[in-house]
Amino acid sequence: MSLLPLILAKRDGRALDAAQIRGFVDGVAGGSLPDYQISAFLMAVFFRGMDREETVTLTRAVAESGAVLDWSDLAAPTVDKHSTGGVGDKLSLVVAPLTAVLGAAVPMLSGRGLGFTGGTLDKLEAIPGLRTRLDRGAFADQLASLGCAFVGQSEDLAPADRRLYALRDVTGTIESTPLIVSSILGKKLAAGPHSLVIDLKVGRGAFMPDLAAAEALGRALRDTAAAFDRRCSVIFTAMDAPLGRAVGNGPEVAEALDVLAGGGPTAVRDLSLELAAEMLRLAGRFPDRAAARDAATVALDDGRALARFREVAAAQGGRLGEAAAGWGLPEPAHRRAVTSTAAGHLPAPDAGRVGWLAVALGAGRRTAEDGVDPTAGIRFSRDWGERVAAGEELAVVEGADAACVERAAEGLARLLAPAPEPPAARPLVLARLDEDGFRPEPPGAP
Amino acid sequence: MSLLPLILAKRDGRALDAAQIRGFVDGVAGGSLPDYQISAFLMAVFFRGMDREETVTLTRAVAESGAVLDWSDLAAPTVDKHSTGGVGDKLSLVVAPLTAVLGAAVPMLSGRGLGFTGGTLDKLEAIPGLRTRLDRGAFADQLASLGCAFVGQSEDLAPADRRLYALRDVTGTIESTPLIVSSILGKKLAAGPHSLVIDLKVGRGAFMPDLAAAEALGRALRDTAAAFDRRCSVIFTAMDAPLGRAVGNGPEVAEALDVLAGGGPTAVRDLSLELAAEMLRLAGRFPDRAAARDAATVALDDGRALARFREVAAAQGGRLGEAAAGWGLPEPAHRRAVTSTAAGHLPAPDAGRVGWLAVALGAGRRTAEDGVDPTAGIRFSRDWGERVAAGEELAVVEGADAACVERAAEGLARLLAPAPEPPAARPLVLARLDEDGFRPEPPGAP
Repeated sequence: MSLLPLILAKRDGRALDAAQIRGFVDGVAGGSLPDYQISAFLMAVFFRGMDREETVTLTRAVAESGAVLDWSDLAAPTVDKHSTGGVGDKLSLVVAPLTAVLGAAVPMLSGRGLGFTGGTLDKLEAIPGLRTRLDRGAFADQLASLGCAFVGQSEDLAPADRRLYALRDVTGTIESTPLIVSSILGKKLAAGPHSLVIDLKVGRGAFMPDLAAAEALGRALRDTAAAFDRRCSVIFTAMDAPLGRAVGNGPEVAEALDVLAGGGPTAVRDLSLELAAEMLRLAGRFPDRAAARDAATVALDDGRALARFREVAAAQGGRLGEAAAGWGLPEPAHRRAVTSTAAGHLPAPDAGRVGWLAVALGAGRRTAEDGVDPTAGIRFSRDWGERVAAGEELAVVEGADAACVERAAEGLARLLAPAPEPPAARPLVLARLDEDGFRPEPPGAP
Repeated sequence: MSLLPLILAKRDGRALDAAQIRGFVDGVAGGSLPDYQISAFLMAVFFRGMDREETVTLTRAVAESGAVLDWSDLAAPTVDKHSTGGVGDKLSLVVAPLTAVLGAAVPMLSGRGLGFTGGTLDKLEAIPGLRTRLDRGAFADQLASLGCAFVGQSEDLAPADRRLYALRDVTGTIESTPLIVSSILGKKLAAGPHSLVIDLKVGRGAFMPDLAAAEALGRALRDTAAAFDRRCSVIFTAMDAPLGRAVGNGPEVAEALDVLAGGGPTAVRDLSLELAAEMLRLAGRFPDRAAARDAATVALDDGRALARFREVAAAQGGRLGEAAAGWGLPEPAHRRAVTSTAAGHLPAPDAGRVGWLAVALGAGRRTAEDGVDPTAGIRFSRDWGERVAAGEELAVVEGADAACVERAAEGLARLLAPAPEPPAARPLVLARLDEDGFRPEPPGAP
């Protein structure tokens, strides 16, 4: 088929029918359509949008462009979570074993990071020996026995999305609701969980800058998921400053393990419990969120969640050590402390800027071909807004490359200049969208 | 340079600065920018437009992306005309020798046709022996001696436009004012004439469907030309039915020669005189359009224009015969008459449909790689609206391929079914735009 008539129709604001959208996705996945026409089409969609029916059809076509996993043989209810991407977001590492230990099965397929948002797969591979390439049989067996597996997204799942996303990334067509919805849900439908919690990040370190835009995207996600009979909740969370105190693959795994061990930064622990509670409620394991959260809190504090993580990692060849030995993660060759130049309050640094510093350090990728340094990262020594004295350590920058560590430390020092006042407190959970509708948090907030 | 920041800026409605636009055009001409980013950028320009300054900068960059011809050594004033493309438009073949004989020099560089609008170069190559590849020296010499040369646009003139146009053609980004303006004027500025008359076609066989849209484009063309100190007039002409009675390369050359010999269809003669008069006025050869038109009328009727065409063709190796011998043009292998099924008035057939019939016949190209059949075409036997009897010949379809001729004749018969009433008369010249502003024709028309 030729894409030109579809480009013209969408450009001029006409809705596409199911056969046209399927033809487009088939041509994308099969390789018969040239990149230059696909990118012109994507830009036309950016400007004209898609109606609900078009979005559902596009999502279905993306999901069905490759293999579709089926978990109907599992005894446990399947549930997954998806984050729209932030800096320091290691929540998947916590919530997958935590919900698994409470009776859900999490068929989570992870990807690699690009730009300043990290990828769960990159984080997991910081664990020595851990294999993320599991075949379908091993994946299913581990899901049945442990309720959780750390698996890289395979080439044959939603292949149309792979090509579309790569083009969107370089053609300025990321920020389009129907394209975001079909990308997220297309992959999740192919991966097969019956319920889905979306952690929709809002703020200067997320591509949704404000709650109003995020609400529109959240509603489109939930409405589209509903068309496929999937239970879907959206939790809108703040992403202005990095989440927690660790940024970078190895450092974030260590922080996730701290949280699984009942410790770790409050923000990471709280948000992990929020997401796990909603996942467990959607999966039908608890009658309400409060009960689910209570159970998840106990599972973090009594060591069951950490034990499950260890079992899962060991099943996949991972060698973890004890907390006192840095969890057995590789040691960085170089470390550099950033200290306070004056007394004051530690500011909440811009998540995007911190993310790009981490990329420059080797923790992330500028292009899909780049490798990552598992030891590269930033460990903040204090929470945002805490009072610090002059000369006090604010953060430690780590990595394999001495010059990169040095430069990143200099950049970070500029972001962390103490301020006379603490930053305005902002709740971590900004709003919720579930079967009861959209509700800002705390109740009554705008 | 990376195009992504420019795509995002234009997508979000911000104006680009001169360095950004130059960087874009350099990357297009030099090949460093990938097609998929260029096409996304073009679609963003389609939606967001460009302001006057951006359009001027883009036009200048396109013009300067390759060689720029300089005619300052010529004694005669240089002038050119450009048609936005129609069916049966053979006016260049008439007006170039006609204005040359009256003291203007016309450095006209012609292109090939694509889709249903023909290319002057394809028409000229229907003349046996005629060479259109002249080197710069021969071109300049012939312009000095004869005031006119039939030359194909060389690869080194406005190379950025070549790549941009090819992409626009397949990505639905043709109909964008700044892209049209920079394409037309970028090429003309590189070709170097000091004055320019634009024949802006309006109607169902043109990409400007109505006069309001055409006026906006015409103003953008004139204003941009003014920024380069070029005198530029726009004549808005009707393109609902084919122009004249001949469509196809050989048939159109024959009709142009008929007009140069003082005969030919009224529409072609009239429009040739209109365009030539405005070209000669702009070039300063006559004080006003009426005087220029009078002189051009004489030059058609006394044989000087035809003699000049013969001299130019002969200088380039072309072998022309006499009118009675079909001007020495190649004879079609197959001919098929279309006759009237009933008495009535010959309708004015849709120019676009006739154009696509001619493409199917072999007179035009579907893709840039196709060849053309110089003998393929349609010769209408009567003018639009004339009364015809049942069984009377309405047109003759010609070409090298018998099956194609047969199919085109069947298609044409459906377009020419006589109607009880003649089509509404519509003037050929719909409006003018010159230093006195925009004026619909006849004066007082809406």
